[in-house]
Amino acid sequence: MTLSPLAPDSFPRLPSISGVELGTAAAGIRKSQRTDLLVAVVAPGTSVAGVFTQSMCPAAPVEWCRRIIETGDGTARALVCNSGNANAFTGKAGEVSTELTAVTVASILGVPADSVFVASTGIIGEPMPDDRVTAAIPGLLSGLATSESGGWEQAADAIRTTDTFSKGAHAPVPGTGASVVGIAKGSGMIAPDMATMLGFVFTDLGIAPEILQESLTASVNKSFNRITVDSDTSTNDTVLLFATGAGAEAPIVSTDDPRLSAFQGALEAVTLDLAQQIIRDGEGATKFVAVKVTGAASEESAAAIARSIANSPLVKTALAAGDANWGRVVMAVGKSGQPANRDKLAIWIGPEQVAASGTVLDGYREGAATAHLALDEIEIKVDVGVGDHEATVWTCDLTHGYIEINAGYRT
Amino acid sequence: MTLSPLAPDSFPRLPSISGVELGTAAAGIRKSQRTDLLVAVVAPGTSVAGVFTQSMCPAAPVEWCRRIIETGDGTARALVCNSGNANAFTGKAGEVSTELTAVTVASILGVPADSVFVASTGIIGEPMPDDRVTAAIPGLLSGLATSESGGWEQAADAIRTTDTFSKGAHAPVPGTGASVVGIAKGSGMIAPDMATMLGFVFTDLGIAPEILQESLTASVNKSFNRITVDSDTSTNDTVLLFATGAGAEAPIVSTDDPRLSAFQGALEAVTLDLAQQIIRDGEGATKFVAVKVTGAASEESAAAIARSIANSPLVKTALAAGDANWGRVVMAVGKSGQPANRDKLAIWIGPEQVAASGTVLDGYREGAATAHLALDEIEIKVDVGVGDHEATVWTCDLTHGYIEINAGYRT
Repeated sequence: MTLSPLAPDSFPRLPSISGVELGTAAAGIRKSQRTDLLVAVVAPGTSVAGVFTQSMCPAAPVEWCRRIIETGDGTARALVCNSGNANAFTGKAGEVSTELTAVTVASILGVPADSVFVASTGIIGEPMPDDRVTAAIPGLLSGLATSESGGWEQAADAIRTTDTFSKGAHAPVPGTGASVVGIAKGSGMIAPDMATMLGFVFTDLGIAPEILQESLTASVNKSFNRITVDSDTSTNDTVLLFATGAGAEAPIVSTDDPRLSAFQGALEAVTLDLAQQIIRDGEGATKFVAVKVTGAASEESAAAIARSIANSPLVKTALAAGDANWGRVVMAVGKSGQPANRDKLAIWIGPEQVAASGTVLDGYREGAATAHLALDEIEIKVDVGVGDHEATVWTCDLTHGYIEINAGYRT
Repeated sequence: MTLSPLAPDSFPRLPSISGVELGTAAAGIRKSQRTDLLVAVVAPGTSVAGVFTQSMCPAAPVEWCRRIIETGDGTARALVCNSGNANAFTGKAGEVSTELTAVTVASILGVPADSVFVASTGIIGEPMPDDRVTAAIPGLLSGLATSESGGWEQAADAIRTTDTFSKGAHAPVPGTGASVVGIAKGSGMIAPDMATMLGFVFTDLGIAPEILQESLTASVNKSFNRITVDSDTSTNDTVLLFATGAGAEAPIVSTDDPRLSAFQGALEAVTLDLAQQIIRDGEGATKFVAVKVTGAASEESAAAIARSIANSPLVKTALAAGDANWGRVVMAVGKSGQPANRDKLAIWIGPEQVAASGTVLDGYREGAATAHLALDEIEIKVDVGVGDHEATVWTCDLTHGYIEINAGYRT
């Protein structure tokens, strides 16, 4: 697979997180011989939080994770993730496979099965080869290594499907000795054949589970929920956040703790970085596009308008061509159904203002807009003239490459 | 422009509608020298009904029509429609242009301005050359012809933009001497550069305006609102229905009139035929696709699920490739957010059942499904297992041709 033209230069150097051990294996779930299984074992007492797909037809592992978070005590001991098979639309057998995977890990580690989180990504509707997973687990668990930079990259690599590069990010938590590290995969917002969005984030801070969940939900809303490749939604999307508490810092047990906002900032930086890397790996993408909406009635409304623009096939094909077709932007604002004042609408393409007061600006220079659209990283800004809230959504262009990748026969 | 491979063999022979006179002209609104202006003058006492775009940023003519329907007495005397310029996002000047057009027609005909309906389709955000419209109107009005088959085709031709063929349809009203005739345009569900969906339908029955509006709303919900090319929504979408009452039949003034259901059937046949012709002219379309959802909680829910499948870029690219990728169908059911029982889900590709009880069917023959997908006209059926309501949405595949048409520079 050709590396995305928008890929970062290299995988970042990621710090070790105390209380996280990693292992990967080539278990033979994928057809090609490459790593396809990741295990992360976390220290006793690790808090966990999760955000999952909105799909009404979620995969078995999503239902498993959701259930053990709802019924559990907020702690986790391990994560198992395979690529190559999504274990989605696999009926009762899929549920059994997921449980078998968790139980296998739990019995070797001597921990409860409901402390083992499971995620899968890959082809939909094919039986999960759980015998290969369970056969690989003992070796994996006996060969775990502490998390250090090479280990994170191997972990990120094991969960890839159509991704053209491995995705990792980190941020220190200012004023503490702790860090946040995350890995992710995703390239189409989903190609159910092979893709889905997974994000696994770890910190060595200790944080009470209910506080951790609020932190994760808030940060996902500003990152993974603000990106779109093709508007499609996976059956398997999963973001999990583990707080091991194995670092030197005392745990955060109150929302009054001043370190919480420092942690939140670091978490948001990591999730946004990972989310933007997914866009940089969008199927067929040649441009990284920020769509910023200002002047909206609420932040949610601003995000909905930005998403309408970012999802519009007509806007996305115009961007692919470098065509300053702002009429399509107006169309997409209109179709969002959100409050907008047509006669106050203003549009910018990069630094060039195109329209004001609901019509094209006198002196608008199409050449300047076209020059901006020739860049790899572009910005569309729209002020909808009804309030003072704003939001940004990130997307990519819609190209022949997308059709090429997604209109191929399954092989 | 190459004729769509899904185009009908020919424009249908359409009957004359008493009380409708037609005229077309090349007014120079479009860059190329071709007809771009249509006037239809209807008999005194003609009832009118309309359905318009849901866009929050509608074009000036849409606002004009909406207003004269709301404030008027339910009758109309003329329709003026231009192609080449949408008069959308043109600020106050756009409103003045629309009114000027209506007033010009009204003053020559000696009728109130608010009995003259205006529609526009074409490029967004460029000033409307209303001087060319008003200059062409006197000649047009002095040269009107009764509506007969050739006239309908010319009328359908004058409102085309990116359409590769003219669209017309008709149906007799059983048990009466009356007919319903309609013309339409549209190829992308919208390409705001040049396209939008317009439908103009005429009958020689007389029908009270409030009854006519109910009839039109019901029939649009089952036809124009059940098609999608690319999920995008025009600023200009307009469907108008005129009932001249100039035929031999007594008017329908009560919903108890037994002829009303016959009329409704004819109207629905005409609007569905026109809507399906728009799909047959979908930008880059190579396949005409019916997506049928059964077993839903309500008809609206069934339609929402069908629309989610029909709009999914991943489903549409798979159909373009003839790939029986039913996993993407599951994904699209899931992302609709509508009630569905994953473990009762059943899927058919043409006559071949693919999945039952939430997993792939034993004995499913992928070859048979692939053979169906090689046809020009294909059907995807999904039973979501929660109720007994159903709906069908029509769409087309997503091909390199769509990218080609929409990623070109404006010229």
